[in-house]
Amino acid sequence: MSGSPRLFEAVPNFSEGRDEERISRIAESVQVVPGVHVLGLHSDPDHNRSVLTFVGEEGALLEASVALARACAREIDLSVQKGVHPRMGVLDVLPFVPLGPPLSDTTLQDAARLARSVGEAIGSLGLPVYLYGAAATASHRENLADVRWGGYDGLDTRIEDPLWRPDYGPRELDARSGAVAVGARPFLVAFNAYLDTDDVDVARIVAAEVRERDGGLPSIKALGLRVGKRAQVSMNLTDLERTSIPAALEAVRRSAEGRGARVESTELVGLVPLSAILEIARHYLALPELRPEHVLEAAFWKSRQDP
Amino acid sequence: MSGSPRLFEAVPNFSEGRDEERISRIAESVQVVPGVHVLGLHSDPDHNRSVLTFVGEEGALLEASVALARACAREIDLSVQKGVHPRMGVLDVLPFVPLGPPLSDTTLQDAARLARSVGEAIGSLGLPVYLYGAAATASHRENLADVRWGGYDGLDTRIEDPLWRPDYGPRELDARSGAVAVGARPFLVAFNAYLDTDDVDVARIVAAEVRERDGGLPSIKALGLRVGKRAQVSMNLTDLERTSIPAALEAVRRSAEGRGARVESTELVGLVPLSAILEIARHYLALPELRPEHVLEAAFWKSRQDP
Repeated sequence: MSGSPRLFEAVPNFSEGRDEERISRIAESVQVVPGVHVLGLHSDPDHNRSVLTFVGEEGALLEASVALARACAREIDLSVQKGVHPRMGVLDVLPFVPLGPPLSDTTLQDAARLARSVGEAIGSLGLPVYLYGAAATASHRENLADVRWGGYDGLDTRIEDPLWRPDYGPRELDARSGAVAVGARPFLVAFNAYLDTDDVDVARIVAAEVRERDGGLPSIKALGLRVGKRAQVSMNLTDLERTSIPAALEAVRRSAEGRGARVESTELVGLVPLSAILEIARHYLALPELRPEHVLEAAFWKSRQDP
Repeated sequence: MSGSPRLFEAVPNFSEGRDEERISRIAESVQVVPGVHVLGLHSDPDHNRSVLTFVGEEGALLEASVALARACAREIDLSVQKGVHPRMGVLDVLPFVPLGPPLSDTTLQDAARLARSVGEAIGSLGLPVYLYGAAATASHRENLADVRWGGYDGLDTRIEDPLWRPDYGPRELDARSGAVAVGARPFLVAFNAYLDTDDVDVARIVAAEVRERDGGLPSIKALGLRVGKRAQVSMNLTDLERTSIPAALEAVRRSAEGRGARVESTELVGLVPLSAILEIARHYLALPELRPEHVLEAAFWKSRQDP
């Protein structure tokens, strides 16, 4: 992979999901940076929150992240903003994700280093920055939910706590902009299984059986929900190296069958790396040798990338 | 897909698989054409034959095909060449394959039109050209095996037969270069299933049950072989729209189980389009909505391709 670009995915969440003009000005601040490829923008008016997905190399991402933080601070005033999500800042969360073959070959450690550079740069803008995930500077800061605990409303007292001193930036809060969590993590896949029942209790029991927190498979977060007329096991797979999509699905299938239910269909939300799709084929076809270079499109794109 | 390039795959077979210098000069004749992306070269010394895989748009492929035919005629002398494959020319077969999303959006009819242009150009070089597959000019010429029937040795009498008049080029044979079959076909996938038995008869029975010729699934060719210590069902899937990889595998599994055998592992030989991999995931995950744009790499490459 010596000729491959050193790419990462950035998936910032910012606290504006209703005002389309503000949202597009914020996205534009990233889009104009050379070497940045915006792959997605999803706004949620209910949570008054948007998620932007972009890919690039370290330098471009650093520049885009600073531009994004500036734009969020300019466009959003958290002291008047309303939203149900437990946000703590205008630019709320900024995770960096390493990308493997065939696109690139960066590691979680590379992403953590990038997160620290970005955190330092955003801190210099005057925003308190907390590092989390693989970039965390202490074990109690690894979990994003712990870092954001209490959200924006509790932040002005929390920032005084010696355990929650920001990693970068000022130790006092601008009420308009709040604080930012900058982190590094593996690719996260949102994967939902719909059951052939409308009984949400079955989905809740299955979710509890498969999720890590209650003794299930590693790196699965799961909830039982009712979506339309069907019970849904809604999952986040937070580390596909530990629990792949097929492993999660087979665990859900077994658990559901124990309750007399079956998985009727599934859905993947957002983008999924090719490696995760290949793992599905390897599993169900008993095809251990399938690799990215066997995919025509990957071979073609690689031939255009290499001189 | 309005901004997509109009791409095809070309998979020529030429009658030299031993002399590395000749092989590389022949491959080089294609490689140097601007807009051509060579994705693979596989030489088989036993059959004294090589397969080249390249991708490009119509103009580049036309130029590369003419260069390839010239190079084969210059480098190979069929009147002294030895090989067990039933070849009929120095450039033996030249199929064009349409490429679907996310790379392109060309059709089999587009590929047939390209094959005819290429056939005409190669005919002008002085080589007799037979069109086959979706480019065939008569129904008895659609099947490549029928077109090549008798091979090189029978060609000098066959070319006199009114039914086998070449579509382009001279109606007399240069013994050094033979004739060329130029065609259009869907993507062909070579897919093998290994059984947990060394009994080749089981593989032969399964192959006969699943292949189209004997009343099995459409567009499957299959043979039972013994490879090492295991029985193998060796398949060519000639039209994935009619029979997908999961449909073929499940047919093999059912048939094998009827004989007390199981599929232990599988293999895909050569390149496979992303759409075929996604179909595997859609089938086994009951995930009807999975499309190329959900794959991170496809989204990324598309963002670089579009302005």
